[in-house]
Amino acid sequence: MKGIIVTKPGGPDQLELIEVPIPEPEEGEMLIRVHAAAVNRTDLLTREGKLGYLTNPVLGIEISGTVVEVKGDSSFSKGDKVMGLVNGGGYGEYAIMPTDRTMRIPDSLSFEQAAAIPEVFLTAYQTLFWIGKLQKYETVLIHAGASGVGIAAIQLAKQLSSAKVIVTAGSKKKLDLCKEFGADVLINYKEQSFDEVILKATDGKGVDLILDFVGADYWEKNLASIKAGGRWVLIGILGGSEVQRVDLLSLMSKCVQITGTLLTPRSDEYKARLTHDFVHKVIPYLEHGEIIPVVDTTFPIEMAAKAHGYMEENQNIGKIILKTLTR
Amino acid sequence: MKGIIVTKPGGPDQLELIEVPIPEPEEGEMLIRVHAAAVNRTDLLTREGKLGYLTNPVLGIEISGTVVEVKGDSSFSKGDKVMGLVNGGGYGEYAIMPTDRTMRIPDSLSFEQAAAIPEVFLTAYQTLFWIGKLQKYETVLIHAGASGVGIAAIQLAKQLSSAKVIVTAGSKKKLDLCKEFGADVLINYKEQSFDEVILKATDGKGVDLILDFVGADYWEKNLASIKAGGRWVLIGILGGSEVQRVDLLSLMSKCVQITGTLLTPRSDEYKARLTHDFVHKVIPYLEHGEIIPVVDTTFPIEMAAKAHGYMEENQNIGKIILKTLTR
Repeated sequence: MKGIIVTKPGGPDQLELIEVPIPEPEEGEMLIRVHAAAVNRTDLLTREGKLGYLTNPVLGIEISGTVVEVKGDSSFSKGDKVMGLVNGGGYGEYAIMPTDRTMRIPDSLSFEQAAAIPEVFLTAYQTLFWIGKLQKYETVLIHAGASGVGIAAIQLAKQLSSAKVIVTAGSKKKLDLCKEFGADVLINYKEQSFDEVILKATDGKGVDLILDFVGADYWEKNLASIKAGGRWVLIGILGGSEVQRVDLLSLMSKCVQITGTLLTPRSDEYKARLTHDFVHKVIPYLEHGEIIPVVDTTFPIEMAAKAHGYMEENQNIGKIILKTLTR
Repeated sequence: MKGIIVTKPGGPDQLELIEVPIPEPEEGEMLIRVHAAAVNRTDLLTREGKLGYLTNPVLGIEISGTVVEVKGDSSFSKGDKVMGLVNGGGYGEYAIMPTDRTMRIPDSLSFEQAAAIPEVFLTAYQTLFWIGKLQKYETVLIHAGASGVGIAAIQLAKQLSSAKVIVTAGSKKKLDLCKEFGADVLINYKEQSFDEVILKATDGKGVDLILDFVGADYWEKNLASIKAGGRWVLIGILGGSEVQRVDLLSLMSKCVQITGTLLTPRSDEYKARLTHDFVHKVIPYLEHGEIIPVVDTTFPIEMAAKAHGYMEENQNIGKIILKTLTR
């Protein structure tokens, strides 16, 4: 089969489509014919050699497709349409998916839409509820509101918690989309100081929870925007990884909780539990169209380098999808 | 009555013993004749003008004494021996204590020992269990093991969770004391690189929980010492408040949770709940001598400046107590 590997750590031009063996499922796994794979920042970091935990030479951590072979007990059969996280190998014609983290694709959704679900929705669900402990009617600040996880998080926070959702984004177009999905307070970070807007919008108290995809650049303003005793979940470093000065006493005085997290390096068992909980709590909303996955652009897999470059320009609204080869 | 106030923000010489009015309890409060007050780092920070949340001009946040007057419903009566946290005013002859965070002094303990309990034991209990979620048989790293909170935390972690306790301290004398109270792995930070010792002692995995009283100086080594998914509770800045460079990606890759906390700025309601839980879970151990408060030195209250200086030298093992005036 064909699959995309990284020739050597570096830019998008290091991606190469080569012939690789079809992987073989072990007990508790399934072989999936991949129809679509989504592009993730994890793929970019892996391509740059910045993450060490993915051993599969073929990139890609989430796919949709059809079941080809099942090893071991399973409620799935050959031909079932499924989606889910994989331990690498998504940018290939076939991939291995652990059965206990496989999800059925709701009938109303295409393979491209389905491939846009696992990473962003599981991440948004995990960070909002498992880590962020979002409670009914709380206030949550979601940076990069028009990103894949951002749009998923806006919808989950509104539908599951009736939260007050504050978003930041860099254009009117992006903010309009956030509003469409339910965001209550829209902040254009290029025109407004988001901490000032937030303090006004929360009677000076700040937000209960921050989903932070930006990191270093927003450090001080996030600290100013969070409520005493608030939770701050670090899930991205769009604005850099290195904070030049962190004042620990301010974290202590405000009793702030900061949790760094990435979904990909979590254990198989963790991902299985998360998927199980997600299927139970969120899939019904996706089935009924109350929560919607958003696809920005679909590239054929031969154009993976272009897809990576497109993500690096931060131009996408919603997910970037790779359509796998058909032959 | 006499009480210690701060003339203007600065060093220990700014402490002054002056005549102030006896405070008046409101509904749900009691007037306490103070027998002993403990010195806390919070007092030092307040003296330096670095904390803004204590409005009582008289310093001091924990006391032991006898009940003089009860306002409202209470299971306490005049003459009862009690201990607990106060909202400032501890360095005075009389102080106000909210009834719902008052604890009876076990018969076996003196007033000096009792004054050594509330702040360190409630802080250790809160950070280990409420914030740090310490589970049975987990491994915990306790910095400044021979400090007041350190000794309390060692005892609580051993008695309540059978945890593996790793401590750091700067002298053999201090480490010997930690061992006496149950610490399993002793690290002299002046002679050993604590992260290396910890990785050896945990088969390269790191610890589940860090109680960090040191802050900036230990940042990188703490990060190296913590297990993936570990919890890190920031409760002191003995080694400075400002970290010069924080790499957020490393917090994310390791899925680390950092929670800053101080007990004093928490709400009255929080302290009442914490006290209630503590009385239920820990006081029986104190009654039976299985957990012991440690007093280093007792100063008469006129020597409060000296007591502050002594704490600033980090020479104490256990708590520093002020004996209130008797007249």
